[in-house]
Amino acid sequence: MNFTIKSKDSRGRIGTFETAHGFVRTPNLMPVIHPGKQTIDISKFDADIVITNAYLIYKDEKLKSKALNNGVHDLINFDGSIMTDSGSYQLSVYGDVEVNNQEIIEFQEAIKTDIGTSLDIPTPPYSTRTKTEEDLKVTLNRAKEAKGIKDNKKMNMLLNSVVQGSTFPDLRSKSAKDLSALNCDIYPIGAIVPLMESYHYSDLVDVIMSSVSNLPDSKPRHLMGAGHPMLFSLAVAMGCDLFDSAAYILYAKNDRFLTIRGTYKLGDLHEMPCSCEVCSKYTPDDLRAMDKKERTRLIAEHNLHVSFAEIRVIRQAIIDGSLMELVEERSRVHPTLLNAYRKLGDYSNNLEVYEPRVKKSAFFYSGAESLKRPEVTRHLIKLDEMNKKRDLAILPPYKKPYSNHLPDKLGDFYVYGDEMEIDLDNIDFMVADIPFGLVPLNIDEAYPLSQHESPKIKDIDGIEFVKSFLLDFVWNYSQILIHSNVAEDYQLCLYRTHPQSNIIDFKINDHDKIKAIADYQFGNKVGDALFKGEIEIEKSKKTGKIRHVYCDGKLVANMRASDSYFVLAKKGAIRLHKAIKFPKNRVVVNADSEPFTREGKSVFSKFVLNCDSNIRANDEVLIVNENDDLLAFGKSLLNCNEMMNFNVGQAIKNRSGYLRC
Amino acid sequence: MNFTIKSKDSRGRIGTFETAHGFVRTPNLMPVIHPGKQTIDISKFDADIVITNAYLIYKDEKLKSKALNNGVHDLINFDGSIMTDSGSYQLSVYGDVEVNNQEIIEFQEAIKTDIGTSLDIPTPPYSTRTKTEEDLKVTLNRAKEAKGIKDNKKMNMLLNSVVQGSTFPDLRSKSAKDLSALNCDIYPIGAIVPLMESYHYSDLVDVIMSSVSNLPDSKPRHLMGAGHPMLFSLAVAMGCDLFDSAAYILYAKNDRFLTIRGTYKLGDLHEMPCSCEVCSKYTPDDLRAMDKKERTRLIAEHNLHVSFAEIRVIRQAIIDGSLMELVEERSRVHPTLLNAYRKLGDYSNNLEVYEPRVKKSAFFYSGAESLKRPEVTRHLIKLDEMNKKRDLAILPPYKKPYSNHLPDKLGDFYVYGDEMEIDLDNIDFMVADIPFGLVPLNIDEAYPLSQHESPKIKDIDGIEFVKSFLLDFVWNYSQILIHSNVAEDYQLCLYRTHPQSNIIDFKINDHDKIKAIADYQFGNKVGDALFKGEIEIEKSKKTGKIRHVYCDGKLVANMRASDSYFVLAKKGAIRLHKAIKFPKNRVVVNADSEPFTREGKSVFSKFVLNCDSNIRANDEVLIVNENDDLLAFGKSLLNCNEMMNFNVGQAIKNRSGYLRC
Repeated sequence: MNFTIKSKDSRGRIGTFETAHGFVRTPNLMPVIHPGKQTIDISKFDADIVITNAYLIYKDEKLKSKALNNGVHDLINFDGSIMTDSGSYQLSVYGDVEVNNQEIIEFQEAIKTDIGTSLDIPTPPYSTRTKTEEDLKVTLNRAKEAKGIKDNKKMNMLLNSVVQGSTFPDLRSKSAKDLSALNCDIYPIGAIVPLMESYHYSDLVDVIMSSVSNLPDSKPRHLMGAGHPMLFSLAVAMGCDLFDSAAYILYAKNDRFLTIRGTYKLGDLHEMPCSCEVCSKYTPDDLRAMDKKERTRLIAEHNLHVSFAEIRVIRQAIIDGSLMELVEERSRVHPTLLNAYRKLGDYSNNLEVYEPRVKKSAFFYSGAESLKRPEVTRHLIKLDEMNKKRDLAILPPYKKPYSNHLPDKLGDFYVYGDEMEIDLDNIDFMVADIPFGLVPLNIDEAYPLSQHESPKIKDIDGIEFVKSFLLDFVWNYSQILIHSNVAEDYQLCLYRTHPQSNIIDFKINDHDKIKAIADYQFGNKVGDALFKGEIEIEKSKKTGKIRHVYCDGKLVANMRASDSYFVLAKKGAIRLHKAIKFPKNRVVVNADSEPFTREGKSVFSKFVLNCDSNIRANDEVLIVNENDDLLAFGKSLLNCNEMMNFNVGQAIKNRSGYLRC
Repeated sequence: MNFTIKSKDSRGRIGTFETAHGFVRTPNLMPVIHPGKQTIDISKFDADIVITNAYLIYKDEKLKSKALNNGVHDLINFDGSIMTDSGSYQLSVYGDVEVNNQEIIEFQEAIKTDIGTSLDIPTPPYSTRTKTEEDLKVTLNRAKEAKGIKDNKKMNMLLNSVVQGSTFPDLRSKSAKDLSALNCDIYPIGAIVPLMESYHYSDLVDVIMSSVSNLPDSKPRHLMGAGHPMLFSLAVAMGCDLFDSAAYILYAKNDRFLTIRGTYKLGDLHEMPCSCEVCSKYTPDDLRAMDKKERTRLIAEHNLHVSFAEIRVIRQAIIDGSLMELVEERSRVHPTLLNAYRKLGDYSNNLEVYEPRVKKSAFFYSGAESLKRPEVTRHLIKLDEMNKKRDLAILPPYKKPYSNHLPDKLGDFYVYGDEMEIDLDNIDFMVADIPFGLVPLNIDEAYPLSQHESPKIKDIDGIEFVKSFLLDFVWNYSQILIHSNVAEDYQLCLYRTHPQSNIIDFKINDHDKIKAIADYQFGNKVGDALFKGEIEIEKSKKTGKIRHVYCDGKLVANMRASDSYFVLAKKGAIRLHKAIKFPKNRVVVNADSEPFTREGKSVFSKFVLNCDSNIRANDEVLIVNENDDLLAFGKSLLNCNEMMNFNVGQAIKNRSGYLRC
């Protein structure tokens, strides 16, 4: 399995893997093709891969002999990649199948499927624990057996191993861990259809998160039986890469239209529900007047158009870095889906690891749920870690970046804590705002502190969130100076205006600013270590933004205009390496790759021996050998887990040759 | 103008009006056709009506003579309805035009346009008040002049009168009122494009709401220059019926794609953004490789596909009664749009008048914003009005309908207020839930108290909303019994368990229930008046739900299964008429229509003389003459304002002949 990731956002990934019949892009949808009864021509849809049922072929003498003679690709007339299911579904429905695990594995290889599946035991939601544990043992044994057969017979086909475990998160985790150890190729998450059909989406979140968190990042995951496009974006954000849709045809047969907003029955439709070819050409009355077969074909085409369009929208959102914005939007179509998204808030720390630290797109606040997004969690932790001065001044929000839009007179400040004489050099100035709580003015240009938008009319969830953080955070300071507007917005009962209120003022100091941003980006006190000696700051003539920082005449770092993060120059990398201790901010590569890395070549995952657990995608990282000799520096394309886990693909874009933007 | 409404939801309406070139459905989009340079063939889009610019035709000798000779329909090759603009846009851009108001009005009639426009003065957002007032005077005078010319010359064309007034809500209101008095045919709302371009959507809400609230309901409103489908649903929910799109082609020329989620530049696209024919057939790379002309044509087609699809989705939502759910979903695409929707919460009382009391679809809670929806406001007012017993027992929510899913043992109750001996007959039992605050158990099957869904994981906005209502509402009672789960959910600091806590129990009493529902539906004490004598209740054998209520052997009312509202029988109507005083629940019709009404014919708006201001669409109403003699009874299809305002179309579906469901 040679899965590689090209772009990531949250746990969602744009990637590709190769089968004997070509490349498969992810995220993707695999239309289900019935081996005997397919009526829809899927060739006009841009499907890389389809799924069909090996057991149905196996059971039907005619199909079986055709498939054995000419292969499954010929049988279903599709020359892209084909995944086959093993009969587990039939097992779950009828209680028994007329084939065993070894037979179906060997049969799938014999018909030249690209991805085969072992005969797992589906454990439906809300099963008993005893039954689930028993079934899991069988599933694991069959997966082991399948892997053994594949390895022994040097089979060409890729192997699915299905994660089961009903609705017990710990059993899903165990199942995922056990199967991961087998090093199979693709990990489906099974037996979740009843959860979807009964709108138990929040339990689905637990099932998926406990599974994916214990699966290798380097393998694609398939959310088995998920064919409703309404769920795709949430599932992708949780790390699912593949979906399969029998829904497109099953729903069509019942005159039902899939849409991002739910399902519509033809009988209820006065207007066609989307922009697709079918919806643009026909009216509901036209369809009702057609014969069943033609109507079914057209509705199935609509269903596929909608499903593939959603896959495209999701891919674009990953590339744009706006996947969570898409999920937040989609989750409003039904309160149970919104509930599921709220549930996902419990996994904020888990998602944070997969969230790139800087992105192209702005952070959009779409309601209370946005408060639990990893970007917010991460910033609050950074605030706690940062060095504090004696006093804290809290300002109301202005136009962003706040520090560029301060009024001439800041206004009145109340005192909280011990009233002391004002010392302007001993005050941290921060803006109180939803959702980031407090934003220090000297780092307010750094992503996402200026790159976010919230509605001006506030909700109570947002207010309470900021207020409760603020009331906790002020304990770090001796004297707190709270602007009268802030006191009003957050209903802080303060009455004592500071007698020197009128002299409180913030003036941006570029030296402080570059050091504070370096601290925010790389860790406390890095700013002082990075920028020492005679500091010279070069700004853009057009925008006035900081572009380059030189110390003693040498370029140390460049500041990226879009997110105000530093991109290191060689001198900066050397200083950073000195300033922070191993393994912080380091990626350790093996000896073999050392020469290539020194030459400025990109680092591939397979060379990575170790990695700071705090590294996220898009970080500026140091590349070292096992002795912590600095070999190079660059931009991480993956996070710590992924770099360790992948064996193919790039991990770091080497920037050692980099001098200027 | 013969505008009629077929279906309504919030302020949105599905309607039709007729021009000399056929019927126009609403809501609708009018693609802008450039009279000289049109390159896109719009015939494949289902456009009822297009808009073109009379001034551009007037100024171009060739176009002018063609249009005067063969008519504008021949000129732009469109045989549906055509609206023409007057040159106001050019006036706003260039400061002057080479035509006066009378000339352009007469020219529009001469080229046989279906809907013409007077030469109004666009007052852009954030103008000075003085300037706006001056311009408004000119606009009003020109509208008057145009109407005079039209009436004098008995012109065939319909007449637009544009509401102006910059961002001053009171001036918008005045402009709307003044123009309404002229009885023109269609009311555009003008000069709002800069608000949309600068994302000032919340000001747009004020502008639209202050305009539509002062325009006649019986005339279509056109949101002039609004061509981005992202905004359509919100605008329709505020009462806009027509949009025009030059955006489809202007954006296409800049390689920009309109979508419901915003605008995408081709340069940023890795995947095509929708399910339309263009997006399904081509990739962004395909488009980038094309010549400009072909690419522009395809992107324009995509833009029209998306825009018309959104119009269809909106129409379906109005019919389904789920327009606000659609708006809440769409408003999540950008925080400024969410802000606008939050702003609309200020107009909840205004929207309530237009909100049908019962609908087909369930109420979905999508976040804090849903708390301001008219359904919630309306229920809380009803709660305040209802008769109260001595005690109030507050229960936690169960599966809906709550009263059907109570546990055998209710659990522990804390006392709040004066502890007294439990008298089960003297307790109002209510469930505390988001968003409806408190739901009395004996009416909990009535719409929307069971027909709503909220996420199980609560937000603070919802909790605080219910809590604050509850803390206020309990003052109506002497003793309040609060279930321990409620105390916990809403963090009520209560410690005293009622000593008789264990005997507190709710048993449904059908007689109480039908009376309570009648009170909820028709007003206090109506239940007692409607259901007296020997009451016999017939239930559905299948569902156990109440279907018919007889008193002394005669059918009084039927209960509708879907929403548990009563549909009156003749005896019920007579009793209701006696029980509540004029003009409550009445529609007064004129003498001419009396015989038809008595015969059971539907009531048309033009016959309506008066109407209880509390009547909403879908209410069961009494039809009386000026002496308050009961003529008939039926279901209102419009609300009070609309019945009074319309001169064509049905107002009430007569149910006098109605006996059983």
